[in-house]
Amino acid sequence: MTLTRREVLGAVGIAAGSCALSSCAMEGIGSFQDGIRKPVFPWRYAELDPDITAHKAYSNYKKGHCMYAAFTSVTSQLADKYGEPYRSFPVNMMIYGAGGVAGWGSLCGSINGSAALVGLFVKKEDEIKQLVNELFLWYQQNELPQYVPQKPDLNIKIAKSVSRSVLCHVSCTRWCKVSGHKAYTKAQKERCKRLSADTAKKTVEILNAHFASRFSAARKHNEKTKQCMSCHTKGSELQNTRGKMSCNSCHSSLADEHI
Amino acid sequence: MTLTRREVLGAVGIAAGSCALSSCAMEGIGSFQDGIRKPVFPWRYAELDPDITAHKAYSNYKKGHCMYAAFTSVTSQLADKYGEPYRSFPVNMMIYGAGGVAGWGSLCGSINGSAALVGLFVKKEDEIKQLVNELFLWYQQNELPQYVPQKPDLNIKIAKSVSRSVLCHVSCTRWCKVSGHKAYTKAQKERCKRLSADTAKKTVEILNAHFASRFSAARKHNEKTKQCMSCHTKGSELQNTRGKMSCNSCHSSLADEHI
Repeated sequence: MTLTRREVLGAVGIAAGSCALSSCAMEGIGSFQDGIRKPVFPWRYAELDPDITAHKAYSNYKKGHCMYAAFTSVTSQLADKYGEPYRSFPVNMMIYGAGGVAGWGSLCGSINGSAALVGLFVKKEDEIKQLVNELFLWYQQNELPQYVPQKPDLNIKIAKSVSRSVLCHVSCTRWCKVSGHKAYTKAQKERCKRLSADTAKKTVEILNAHFASRFSAARKHNEKTKQCMSCHTKGSELQNTRGKMSCNSCHSSLADEHI
Repeated sequence: MTLTRREVLGAVGIAAGSCALSSCAMEGIGSFQDGIRKPVFPWRYAELDPDITAHKAYSNYKKGHCMYAAFTSVTSQLADKYGEPYRSFPVNMMIYGAGGVAGWGSLCGSINGSAALVGLFVKKEDEIKQLVNELFLWYQQNELPQYVPQKPDLNIKIAKSVSRSVLCHVSCTRWCKVSGHKAYTKAQKERCKRLSADTAKKTVEILNAHFASRFSAARKHNEKTKQCMSCHTKGSELQNTRGKMSCNSCHSSLADEHI
């Protein structure tokens, strides 16, 4: 087995928590800072091709489902580019997010994995929020999936639906209603594969823009949600709830005037 | 700076993807398998003290909120015990899960982080599901928080509430209603700190039982949810939805008989 210089240097950083060779820091692999024990954080991002990323997510889905697909579509490219520490990240842990976490239908795994990527590459909390807001609003408001693979695992036309929610349960149910397909079918799985590809692509577009200092938030909450928030969320009169999910997706029967 | 033998061996494993010394595998730190490039997965768990874990989650909350608190309550103890690869895990990425992911109020961060731990230590998907089911049902059905810190950051009595949901938005709103406190207050933060401690403790109890081969699922979905599932979920007649979240928490106005 042969090792590249980069791999050896990265490993020395991980071992010692310090670099005897100053070139270790210059490599910028994001392992350890010079002279101290603490790992460098956040990890270094590199501009990626959104279409290649979409393809990788689609392809990786079969190895670990939605969260794994979105997460590894990015980390695998950085592992190819930089080696460590990306190569050693225990990516299989991301299988837990499948089907809204272990099949619970809570947060869609593709955006859970994508938000985890944002957390890995972006340090400032207000910036994490801005980028995740954009991704989650895009997910809620757009007809998905858009991605059409060149070599589909299941070669059928996949209907598009607007989830109006970041929750797997709602997103899948709406797609079943629009498409006429049942849940837990090959067709639904194909839809979620393509959705994971779309989400990974969007995440990379957002991260590319952020690290090129050209990110600007393009999306807003729907009018109904803004109306709800004006009374119920942070800084409002009642301030009796938390969150940014679309309100009317669940609270559909609530009248405008209510006590 | 001095290095322990374990740290040096672990680092060699990470560097080379193979161990020249067979003792590396015996150390079982979970870095790399002998002779191949692939990292060992899952990572090795060690039985932890649930009360110490609760305290660590409570204490770590201030550094990165709920998901970070739950996740690091376990990984920090394993890093103290084993060093690498636990020490190098980029735990700060878990800040993304705060407030149901970047404040979105979706999946509660404490159980997102705890489910991620299950994913890190457990390989088989059916086992991940069993353990997460137990954790999520416990979270939904119990009066929380139970944890009372010896030295509280905010020294007030914290009311308990039953979330009936795994979602931050619902969990927090219900607690606000029961306690009379507003959201985004010091009291609500103190509640979420203690809830993170409870969740971390429960996760370690579940993992301890699993790895001692004495785990058995104790909790079940409520009757209403079982009734809904009998028509709507996997293997049912309609099979038009996915998920295991408590149905009646959101679908509260649905009559037993509906078309």
